[in-house]
Amino acid sequence: MNYTLNNIPERTVKPRQKGLTMVMDKGLSLRQVEDFLEVAGTHTDIVKLGWATSYVTPNLKEKLALYRSAGIPVYFGGTLFEAFAIRNQFEDYQRVLDEFGMEYAEVSDGSMDIVHEEKCEYIAKLAKQVTVISEVGSKDATKIFAPYKWIQLMKAEIEAGSWKVIAEAREGGNVGIYRGTGEVREGLVDEILTQIPDERIIWEAPQKEQQVWFIKLIGSNVNLGNIAPAEVIPLETIRLGLRGDTFDYFLNK
Amino acid sequence: MNYTLNNIPERTVKPRQKGLTMVMDKGLSLRQVEDFLEVAGTHTDIVKLGWATSYVTPNLKEKLALYRSAGIPVYFGGTLFEAFAIRNQFEDYQRVLDEFGMEYAEVSDGSMDIVHEEKCEYIAKLAKQVTVISEVGSKDATKIFAPYKWIQLMKAEIEAGSWKVIAEAREGGNVGIYRGTGEVREGLVDEILTQIPDERIIWEAPQKEQQVWFIKLIGSNVNLGNIAPAEVIPLETIRLGLRGDTFDYFLNK
Amino acid sequence: MNYTLNNIPERTVKPRQKGLTMVMDKGLSLRQVEDFLEVAGTHTDIVKLGWATSYVTPNLKEKLALYRSAGIPVYFGGTLFEAFAIRNQFEDYQRVLDEFGMEYAEVSDGSMDIVHEEKCEYIAKLAKQVTVISEVGSKDATKIFAPYKWIQLMKAEIEAGSWKVIAEAREGGNVGIYRGTGEVREGLVDEILTQIPDERIIWEAPQKEQQVWFIKLIGSNVNLGNIAPAEVIPLETIRLGLRGDTFDYFLNK
Repeated sequence: MNYTLNNIPERTVKPRQKGLTMVMDKGLSLRQVEDFLEVAGTHTDIVKLGWATSYVTPNLKEKLALYRSAGIPVYFGGTLFEAFAIRNQFEDYQRVLDEFGMEYAEVSDGSMDIVHEEKCEYIAKLAKQVTVISEVGSKDATKIFAPYKWIQLMKAEIEAGSWKVIAEAREGGNVGIYRGTGEVREGLVDEILTQIPDERIIWEAPQKEQQVWFIKLIGSNVNLGNIAPAEVIPLETIRLGLRGDTFDYFLNK
Repeated sequence: MNYTLNNIPERTVKPRQKGLTMVMDKGLSLRQVEDFLEVAGTHTDIVKLGWATSYVTPNLKEKLALYRSAGIPVYFGGTLFEAFAIRNQFEDYQRVLDEFGMEYAEVSDGSMDIVHEEKCEYIAKLAKQVTVISEVGSKDATKIFAPYKWIQLMKAEIEAGSWKVIAEAREGGNVGIYRGTGEVREGLVDEILTQIPDERIIWEAPQKEQQVWFIKLIGSNVNLGNIAPAEVIPLETIRLGLRGDTFDYFLNK
Repeated sequence: MNYTLNNIPERTVKPRQKGLTMVMDKGLSLRQVEDFLEVAGTHTDIVKLGWATSYVTPNLKEKLALYRSAGIPVYFGGTLFEAFAIRNQFEDYQRVLDEFGMEYAEVSDGSMDIVHEEKCEYIAKLAKQVTVISEVGSKDATKIFAPYKWIQLMKAEIEAGSWKVIAEAREGGNVGIYRGTGEVREGLVDEILTQIPDERIIWEAPQKEQQVWFIKLIGSNVNLGNIAPAEVIPLETIRLGLRGDTFDYFLNK
C-alpha cells in the first residue's frame, strides 16, 4: 500500500481460499494483459477466459504464458465445456486442456440441459485431470430454481470434486442469483449460506452494487467473480472500506 | 481457430459482402489500435471513426496508416459529412477525403435536414471519388419514419451509388431501428427485408441483445455495425453459436 | 485540428479557468496513462485519481510523474481526504500530499458528516499547502439539500480558500445534482448559477446526456468533471458542436 491508514480490514493473502477475485478476460490483447497484470495482478486470484472466447482469440498460448508467468491460474469459461459436451466431444475437450497446459477447468450447464448425475460425472472425471470449478444456475432468465435445489446441486458438485462452486450471473449480472434488474435474490443467498460454507462459493458479481451487497453480507474476504479487468482496483477499495459504499462499514469493527 | 469444434456455422471470409463487422473507433490511441488489430483484426471488415471525432483526434494520419497496413478500410462518421455540408463546405470535405487518402465515405442526414434528392446527389458525387456508405434514419428519437419510407430511402440511395446502406442506431443503440429502450422495431426490420437484400444493409447494433436478435433473424453472416472494439470477439462467438445467447441456435442446422 | 471547419465555437486554452475537463483515473496502468495522454492530453485540464484508488494502485509515483511530464495536475479523490480525516489522521494526510509532491487536493464530505465550519477549516489549512478543490453534495442518495443550502456551502468554501467547488455526482452520475435516473435537478442548477459564477464550479457529469445538458445551458466552456478517459474526445466534439447532440446548437451563434 502506498501510505498508512489505520483500521483497515485485513485481507487474506495469495494463494487465497477466501477473498478471491475472479476476473473475466473476454478478449484482451497481450499488451492489455500486461497492463492488467501491472495494475491488478496482486489483487487477482484467478482469470476466466469468458465463455468460448478462447476459440477465436489470437495468440492464445502467449496469453496463457503471460498469466502463468504472473502466477495467476486461468481457465476457459464453462460454455466452452458445454460446447464440447453437447457435440459429444468431451474427450476432445480433455485433450484441449492438456494441449494448452490448463490446470483448472469449469463445468457448467448454463446453456444446455445435463442430467445432474452426468454433470457430476464430468466433474469427477475432470477432477482427476485439473482443479475443477463448477457453476450452478442457468443463463436462461426464465429458469428459476428454489433455494433447496441450489443447495442440493452445490453440495453434490462439491462432493463430486469441485474446488469451488460458482453462482451464475453472466457477464451482465442479471440472471441466476440476481433478478433481471441486477438486484440480488437475498433470500436465496441467505438460504444457500445456511448450508454451504461461503469459502466454497464464488459469487458472480459484475455490478458494483452486487459487490457491495456481498461484501456487507459476508465481509471483505468474500469470493467474487466476473469482475471486469478495469474494476479490480475499484473492487479492492470496496473490500477495504475505501470507497463511499463501504466507507464506514468496517470502521468500528 | 485454436481447436476443433464440430458443427460450427460457416463464416464468410474477407473481403466480405455479407457477414461484415463494422467497428466504431471513437478515439483509440495508436497503441490501442495495434492492440485492437492484434485481437480483432481478422474479424473486423471496416472501421468508422465515430461522427466527427477525427477533427480532434491526434496522430490521425498515423492511425489511418495503421488500419491501412492491416488491410482494414476506414471512414469518417457521417456526422462529419454533415458538419461540412451544413456549412456549405462540401468541396472542402472532398479535399479532406483526398488529403487523408480515404477510400470510403459516409453520407447521412441524421443531424440535419437534407432534401432526399440532394442527399442522393451527394452520394452520386462522392461515389465517383470513393466507395460510399449511406445512412438512413435520424439521430432524433422523435423522428419516426414508416417502413415504406425507410425502404424508399434505402432504394434511392442504393440507386444513387451507395455500396451499403446503414440503418441508424447511434453509439447507444436507442434510436432509428430501435426503441428508446434498445428494443428492435421488429416489424420495421421485417418489412425492410422484404424489399432490400440483407447484404446491402449494415444494421447498427451496439448492444448485445440487438446483435443476437439480428443473428437469429438473418444468420451468422449478417452485417452489423457500431460494434465497440472490445466487443468484436464477443460478437464473433455469438455469430458462431459459442455464447449462451445462440448456443443451440445453429446446432441442428 | 486536422482540417478546417467554419463557425466552430471558440474554446478557451490551457491553463483554463473555465472550459475545464476533469478526468477520473480509477486505475490506469502506466502505458494506459501514456495512451490517454497521446489522445486526450491536450483536452484534459486536471486528473483525479478516483476516491482512494491511490491506496492500492501500483507504481503511483511513476504514474504521477507521467501526468506531471504532460503538464496535467493530479489530485487524490476527496474520499481519501475523508478516510484520513475520519481516522483522525489529517496530519498524516498532509504528509502524504508532500511525500507524493501533490500540488492539488480535494476536500469533501460525501461519505462522512463534518460540521461545515470544520470542513472550511480543513480547506483553509490545506490551501496554505496546495490548491484546494472542494466538493459539495453527499454520496448518499437520500441526503437532499435545498438549493439555498448548496449556495451557502459553496460560498463558504470559496471564501475558505477553494479554487473550485465540485458539484457531486459520483462515478455513476446518479446522486447530488442528479436524480437516481441520472436526470439533472435543473431547478437546483439554475438557482446555484444565480449566486455562484459558473467558472468557480466543476459539474461532475459522467453521462453523455448530462454533459450535453450543461453545454447547452452554459456553453462550450463549462467546467465538467468525472469524465472517463475514453470519453474525453467524445466530450470535446460535443463542446464543439460536432456530435449529433449539439450539432446545430452553435451554428447560428
